[in-house]
Amino acid sequence: MTTVRTAVVLLSGGLDSATCLAWARTHGFVCHTLAVDYGQRHRVELDAARRVAAVLDAASHREVKTDLRSIGGSALTAAVDVPKERTAAEIGSDIPITYVPARNTVFLALALGLAETLVAADLVAGMNALDYSGYPDCRPEFVRAFESLARVATRAGVGGTEYRIHTPLMSLDKAAMIRLGISLGVDFGLTHSCYDPAPDGAACGGCDACVLRRNGFLAAGIADPTRYALTARSG
Amino acid sequence: MTTVRTAVVLLSGGLDSATCLAWARTHGFVCHTLAVDYGQRHRVELDAARRVAAVLDAASHREVKTDLRSIGGSALTAAVDVPKERTAAEIGSDIPITYVPARNTVFLALALGLAETLVAADLVAGMNALDYSGYPDCRPEFVRAFESLARVATRAGVGGTEYRIHTPLMSLDKAAMIRLGISLGVDFGLTHSCYDPAPDGAACGGCDACVLRRNGFLAAGIADPTRYALTARSG
Repeated sequence: MTTVRTAVVLLSGGLDSATCLAWARTHGFVCHTLAVDYGQRHRVELDAARRVAAVLDAASHREVKTDLRSIGGSALTAAVDVPKERTAAEIGSDIPITYVPARNTVFLALALGLAETLVAADLVAGMNALDYSGYPDCRPEFVRAFESLARVATRAGVGGTEYRIHTPLMSLDKAAMIRLGISLGVDFGLTHSCYDPAPDGAACGGCDACVLRRNGFLAAGIADPTRYALTARSG
Repeated sequence: MTTVRTAVVLLSGGLDSATCLAWARTHGFVCHTLAVDYGQRHRVELDAARRVAAVLDAASHREVKTDLRSIGGSALTAAVDVPKERTAAEIGSDIPITYVPARNTVFLALALGLAETLVAADLVAGMNALDYSGYPDCRPEFVRAFESLARVATRAGVGGTEYRIHTPLMSLDKAAMIRLGISLGVDFGLTHSCYDPAPDGAACGGCDACVLRRNGFLAAGIADPTRYALTARSG
């Protein structure tokens, strides 16, 4: 006999979080997905998150608006140029300007609030310490610190709930992530990674997210289903 | 010679956070204030926050929208009745239904993001462990856990910034808070506490926030400048 466990899964619309949702479903969690509308420069990824939630059988999907533009500090929310055509080594070498201050802290806080409302003790998020080594809030020490916080921050935590943040992608490189997703049946054609898509939703092919994604499919030896803009360089 | 220190002050429009801002100004901080529009049932407190920021000489004031209604769980954001005419003892006896899951975690996360953007290491917030003993995220252990999180969650923290969350009201009762505010020159007539104001902004006089505020002024022996609705019971 198994107990039904409920999880809140942060969903961005990208391939990472789609793989997380598939992982959580495979591990028997009833999954409620949460996408954060944080003032991204485009809605393409929010639409992708909704499609992924539906196809991967989320019990519910929510979009929560949190306007991170008003606290500033990043190319992902402000009107500055997204860097293009950097190599994977360059992308991993420093904290990129696409870093949004405290973004994962805000996202996990929202997921924690929803978890408490739904009486769920499990959160699932796509943090990854390899491809995004430049983001301090993608590291295991951040995740452990947030679990400690959750225990004292909530009514449920005070009542004994041991919140657990699952990060199944933490130590995987992009190719391993893609292989994991494929093995779990994820249709990556539904997902969106590009920071700077064309008006029709096609990926630019040159931003950090596109470079990591393209390299990942190449390294995994799996055909890349991404629709790139015509001006994008071929992989 | 003194160094200019910059702080982010969470401002709700209530008397607690106004006192915090006055405290921070008195302690020499250049203060940037942040009010969170989290889907409150009314805008009166957001307007009060703006007035308080202007009068107490904040260097900047921001409102950030974060729609906590979509994660549910509280009478402050949902269409359920706010409890009325409870005694202070009843209010302090359990976690009230006005509790918003993870609210202070979300608020501090936003303040942390702004602090990193502004290169500030100090946050100021009105958490209080006495009057709001029912809120887990108003206790010192929560504040300390968040400071630990901040050190690993941000680029600045990883770079050595020791974030400090100042909670000057933590161990004060409402009367002591009011006396502190008066000694710092706060005009409490600018502030708003009521959970359920009349359409013209007058306080209801009966919700938990009104009861605590009225009792506080009574206990401090200070005239209550609050404008109550005509139907409210006199103090």
